[in-house]
Amino acid sequence: MKVLVVGANGQIGKHLVQFIQDHDDLQAKAMIRNKEQARFFKDLGAEVAVVDLEDDIKAIQQAADDVDAVVFTAGSGPHTGKDKTMMIDLDGAVKTIEATKAAGVKRFVMISSFDTTREAIQQAPESFSPYVAAKHYADVWLRDTDLDHTIIHPGRLTNDAGTGNVSLAATTQPDEVAREDIARVILSSLVHNNTIGQEFQVVQGDTAIDDAIQSL
Amino acid sequence: MKVLVVGANGQIGKHLVQFIQDHDDLQAKAMIRNKEQARFFKDLGAEVAVVDLEDDIKAIQQAADDVDAVVFTAGSGPHTGKDKTMMIDLDGAVKTIEATKAAGVKRFVMISSFDTTREAIQQAPESFSPYVAAKHYADVWLRDTDLDHTIIHPGRLTNDAGTGNVSLAATTQPDEVAREDIARVILSSLVHNNTIGQEFQVVQGDTAIDDAIQSL
Repeated sequence: MKVLVVGANGQIGKHLVQFIQDHDDLQAKAMIRNKEQARFFKDLGAEVAVVDLEDDIKAIQQAADDVDAVVFTAGSGPHTGKDKTMMIDLDGAVKTIEATKAAGVKRFVMISSFDTTREAIQQAPESFSPYVAAKHYADVWLRDTDLDHTIIHPGRLTNDAGTGNVSLAATTQPDEVAREDIARVILSSLVHNNTIGQEFQVVQGDTAIDDAIQSL
Repeated sequence: MKVLVVGANGQIGKHLVQFIQDHDDLQAKAMIRNKEQARFFKDLGAEVAVVDLEDDIKAIQQAADDVDAVVFTAGSGPHTGKDKTMMIDLDGAVKTIEATKAAGVKRFVMISSFDTTREAIQQAPESFSPYVAAKHYADVWLRDTDLDHTIIHPGRLTNDAGTGNVSLAATTQPDEVAREDIARVILSSLVHNNTIGQEFQVVQGDTAIDDAIQSL
C-alpha cells in the first residue's frame, strides 16, 4: 500500500514517513512544499511530490494518482498568520479531500484537532477559535464524502519521545500526547480497516497502540 | 413579512432596513451587536435584536424565531483581522443558516461576494483569498440546505448614491455597484419569489431593479 503523506515535513509527518518506510507492506510518498525538504525523505527511501497546498486541486490530484491512501497531517502552525488557518487548515484540507476523490483513492486519514465540535468552537479562547473552526469544517467536509475515512483527534501535542502506548476512545479526558505516538496511531489506522468510518480522541495512556486501535 | 437583517449596522444593512420600513408589506428586525447601535433602527420603526455573531446558534435562533425571512449581510470588513474572516464571514454565516433552520424559517437571502467559485479562491490576490474562501464555504453550506435561498453576488461595492438600475445575471462582467442598489436588489428578491433557488451577480447597469429581478 502506497500512502501519500500531506504535510510530510511537519513533525508528525516526518515520524510517519519513517514508520511507513519501516513497515514491510507500506511505501510512503511525501508531499512537501519545497524541494529543499526532499533529502530527508529520499534518504528514507520514500518518494517525494513537491506540491504547495495553496496550489489547485489538480496539482494535489497528480500527487495522489498512484497511491492507495492519503493522510492529511498538514497544519498552518502557530507561527503563520490567521489567513493560513483558512487557506491551509480548511481550504488545503478540502482540496486534498477533493483531490483524493478525483484520483479515485478511497482511503483517507485526517489528523484533526482534539475537539472540533460546534461547542468547542464557541468555548475556545478567541485566538484559538479560528483554528478550531477550520478543523471543524474540514472534518464536516470529510464526513460528508463517501471516502473510507478515519478522523484522529489528538490531545495536546508534545515533542516527547513516544511510549507506544495511548488512551484512545470516541471521547477521552483532555491530556497530552507525543507526536511520535500520533504517527504510530496513524500507521496502525492505515493497516487496521476497523478504523474506517471511525473517529476518536487520543491522549497518552497505558494501552499498546495496535491493541487500542483493534479494540475500537 | 417580517425580515431579520443580520448585519443591519453595516452600510448595506442600514439602507435595507430603511427600504423594508418604507415598504407597506414588510417589517424589519435589525440584528445588531451593540445596543448603542439601536437608535438608528428604532427611529425607523424597526425592531431590534442585540446578538453578537460570535454568540451561539441559540442566540441567533431567538432573534429569528418570529420572522418570515433572514438576510445575511454581515461582513467582517477590511479593518478586522483575518481571524474575523473565519469567525464572521464563514462561521457567523453558517450559524445564521443553522439558526434559521432551527427557528423553522424557510426564506434566506445571502449577500455573498462577486465570485466565490473554487477558481476565484485560487486566482484571488493572497490577501483576499481567505475572504473569498470564507464566502465560498458559506455559499456551499447554504446551497446544501433545503432553505428557500437566494445568493446575491455583488460587484465592487461603492458608497455612491444608487441609481435604481443594475445589470444582473448568473454571470456578469466585473464592475462596480452601489451598496444602496444592492439593498434594493435584496428588497426586490424578498418580494419576488422567482428568486428562490437562484443566485446571480449584480453590477451597475441600465435595467430597473424590479424588472431585472423578475426577468431572471
